[in-house]
Amino acid sequence: MGKFHLLNSSKEKTTEYKLVRVKSAWTCKEKHSHTGPKACVSAAKIYESLTDKGTCWTVVTPIIFSYKVTETHGLLDPCNSTLLTGHTHEPQQADTLRIPTKPIRRFVVVDQEVYRIYGTQISTYFESNNVTCKILALPTTEENKSMEMALKILEELNSFTIDRRTEPVIAIGGGVCLDIVAWLPPLPTTLLSYIDASVGAKTGVNFANCKNKIGAYIPPVATYLDLSFIKTIPRRHISNGLAEMLKMALMKHKELFELLEKHGQHLLESKFQSDSNVFGQSSQSASRSTRLAIITMLEELAPNLWEDDLDRLVDFGHLVSPALEMRVLPSLLHGEAVNIDMAYMVYVSRESGLLTDEEKNRIISCMVGLELPVWHQACTMELIQSSLQDRLKHSGGLVRMPLPVGLGQAEIFNNTSYEILNSAYEKWCNELSIPVDV
Amino acid sequence: MGKFHLLNSSKEKTTEYKLVRVKSAWTCKEKHSHTGPKACVSAAKIYESLTDKGTCWTVVTPIIFSYKVTETHGLLDPCNSTLLTGHTHEPQQADTLRIPTKPIRRFVVVDQEVYRIYGTQISTYFESNNVTCKILALPTTEENKSMEMALKILEELNSFTIDRRTEPVIAIGGGVCLDIVAWLPPLPTTLLSYIDASVGAKTGVNFANCKNKIGAYIPPVATYLDLSFIKTIPRRHISNGLAEMLKMALMKHKELFELLEKHGQHLLESKFQSDSNVFGQSSQSASRSTRLAIITMLEELAPNLWEDDLDRLVDFGHLVSPALEMRVLPSLLHGEAVNIDMAYMVYVSRESGLLTDEEKNRIISCMVGLELPVWHQACTMELIQSSLQDRLKHSGGLVRMPLPVGLGQAEIFNNTSYEILNSAYEKWCNELSIPVDV
Ligand SMILES: NC(=O)c1ccc[n+]([C@@H]2O[C@H](COP(=O)([O-])OP(=O)(O)OC[C@H]3O[C@@H](n4cnc5c(N)ncnc54)[C@H](O)[C@@H]3O)[C@@H](O)[C@H]2O)c1
Ligand SMILES: NC(=O)c1ccc[n+]([C@@H]2O[C@H](COP(=O)([O-])OP(=O)(O)OC[C@H]3O[C@@H](n4cnc5c(N)ncnc54)[C@H](O)[C@@H]3O)[C@@H](O)[C@H]2O)c1
Ligand SMILES: [Zn+2]
Ligand SMILES: [Zn+2]
Repeated sequence: MGKFHLLNSSKEKTTEYKLVRVKSAWTCKEKHSHTGPKACVSAAKIYESLTDKGTCWTVVTPIIFSYKVTETHGLLDPCNSTLLTGHTHEPQQADTLRIPTKPIRRFVVVDQEVYRIYGTQISTYFESNNVTCKILALPTTEENKSMEMALKILEELNSFTIDRRTEPVIAIGGGVCLDIVAWLPPLPTTLLSYIDASVGAKTGVNFANCKNKIGAYIPPVATYLDLSFIKTIPRRHISNGLAEMLKMALMKHKELFELLEKHGQHLLESKFQSDSNVFGQSSQSASRSTRLAIITMLEELAPNLWEDDLDRLVDFGHLVSPALEMRVLPSLLHGEAVNIDMAYMVYVSRESGLLTDEEKNRIISCMVGLELPVWHQACTMELIQSSLQDRLKHSGGLVRMPLPVGLGQAEIFNNTSYEILNSAYEKWCNELSIPVDV
Repeated sequence: MGKFHLLNSSKEKTTEYKLVRVKSAWTCKEKHSHTGPKACVSAAKIYESLTDKGTCWTVVTPIIFSYKVTETHGLLDPCNSTLLTGHTHEPQQADTLRIPTKPIRRFVVVDQEVYRIYGTQISTYFESNNVTCKILALPTTEENKSMEMALKILEELNSFTIDRRTEPVIAIGGGVCLDIVAWLPPLPTTLLSYIDASVGAKTGVNFANCKNKIGAYIPPVATYLDLSFIKTIPRRHISNGLAEMLKMALMKHKELFELLEKHGQHLLESKFQSDSNVFGQSSQSASRSTRLAIITMLEELAPNLWEDDLDRLVDFGHLVSPALEMRVLPSLLHGEAVNIDMAYMVYVSRESGLLTDEEKNRIISCMVGLELPVWHQACTMELIQSSLQDRLKHSGGLVRMPLPVGLGQAEIFNNTSYEILNSAYEKWCNELSIPVDV
């Protein structure tokens, strides 16, 4: 599978065929051959090239992906039908589901900690809707984020026997839980998974000591978002999610940055449960900031679902952090490692003359206000260099470094010199390093 | 992920956005907003619906899949560069690969039996092309077609460290081997995998006693076909592959049917290594029949890569055979079970008045000529009925039974009565059953 580019060397003779349905069979017809106005013609094409070595067919097929992200409230309110019918795209299918004679079945995978807090509510929801349901509560931790866990779930699913076309399975939990059961409609319960893991199309499990090594790029049919789950998240995990929001803000949305700058502390205190009132002025900081984070993320995702375009703003904070995260495991959360990476990159921007001193300081202060670490002793110049080297290999020979150029704007750079990387590193350490106890 | 169908209830207000690239960032713009002629506009769209319950975003993204199927000869001839550069779509990339300074690396997974016969040739090929290569010879049998085997290969691959973007891994073997390493460019070495497994987009491993339970629908970048591997295939396995060719013939290609009818024995004798000469008339039966089998298969595949359309001619022979194959494991090969299923269905066609007695007899004789079983005592009326019941559940409530309506033509039927199924079964047993020893 790959991006399409038709070779056309002088020796080759290539014929393009369209595909026309004749009764039940699809049939190749020459590109310019006549087909009646009522003919069923596929969007797919087949190209046939004859060379002296043999025949080569190239099949080119457009596929329309579609998926839904629904932000709502009261998902576990027994009167809310989202979890029962929200996945369907076809109105008549939704009706079928409401016919009371056909018993509804649901298979639910849930994070153990979430189950401890919301288990009763979840059971009550399905019971009062007459749904036969099997709830599988699992310790979906980073250490367990493995193929074994994924297979275990598949085994249980298999023994429950469900019609996967009309009875989707649901996953309830944080990023780890949602990543493991990649193929299920997710109901994210952490801030990080709310604005990032469940909106993106990428999932995976860890393998051979590498993060997310085995994975897929297929988004589930639907994602359900309900902020009320965030109220029970530990404060450190709220900061963790805020890091990914800040990433989108720095890359492309000044208003979002200013929201986080001004209301960060309120968001941490209120756990996104109420909108804030600062200096006598009420602002819808919780709903507005999550909304902007989701939209900016979807904007980047939709045109580049499979990451064919390697120039990705969403990679900001993700160039050095994967190695850092793995090196100090489990001391840094994902968003914390991302923030340390971003803080260093802000210094690189400053050294490259892309940010003013004032802008740089505002960004770092905002990070501190979100209670995120801005430096780490394990993030050495060697680690930075080896991470960038590594990226070169996997990004078609270019480093493709997203850097902020002002507040809420960014560009991709490929030629940042070692001198700049190094002087940025020194300034970063001078200004932000925390003395390590000996 | 699902087929796209935009709900539009009266309470909803839906806004359509296009995605425009502004510097490095993708940005939502109202559908009708002005964008300059040079603007970079994505084919993706985002729809935002506001309801009283919350916001729902629908992301709709077209993705262009493309893949190549190359029929050639002398793949293992050291001068043939197909295995070194055939996977690339971009001409300049092909050039890079030819620069002698950059050492080429290849990871090759190969069926143990194929390795025994072709191992020296494979090693010589890569050695004389200065390719650093790791060859992993594995017992890729139906019993080993599991997730464990797939993971084992991933582990080895991981420790070899390869740049997967420019250095694809190759799989050499039959359908089992190619199914396990689904994500690799295949080099099929059995007739069945030549014309079916490697051309299709579907792959999978067995799980929890079910055939191909875990799998993917993603075709690899390229498939390489070379008939010369078939010369070492046991005769029974040639018949096995001929069954899938016959399937395509019966469904949509009379010429292919007549080729198999007339030259079947020759194809079995010559193992597709030479074209035949019957009644003084030479015919290119080996090359022509494989070519037709591949084209007819690609025609059905291209418009329906992900099987969104459930009316599939390629399902012929695959309604009852999966259960039959599993029930008598390992006594029937895949193509043999498929042929028994097809033979019964031919009787259903006859009973439905879709085939004449003469047509029915010609088809059964052709099957016998291909040395394929046309009846089996384990294929009972109960098995047939439960298989069709099961299919109803997974095919949106319709049985969607492909049936031949003449030679090389077929249609999909949904209302075949129990009476017809049963009288077809009786005639089938009366005419074709083999007395079982007591
Ligand atoms: N697929 C993607 O695009 C993507 C993007 C970002 C991160 N990720 C992945 O997400 C994972 C991190 O996600 P995470 O931060 O959500 O971690 P997590 O799933 O481990 O959850 C964090 C902790 O919060 C608990 N928890 C979850 N919901 C709760 C609730 N409502 N109330 C109280 N406690 C709750 C969990 O039990 C856990 O202990 C990483 O593995 C990362 O790789 C994936
Ligand atoms: N993905 C698909 O679309 C698709 C379609 C049809 C079948 N299949 C799968 O393919 C499998 C069957 O494939 P198969 O019939 O190729 O079986 P196979 O891979 O088991 O090969 C058959 C036998 O031939 C041997 N062999 C392979 N190449 C040889 C060669 N050149 N010379 C001598 N011996 C050789 C093998 O070692 C094996 O013993 C099944 O698991 C079936 O589910 C998949
Ligand atoms: Zn991240
Ligand atoms: Zn088959």
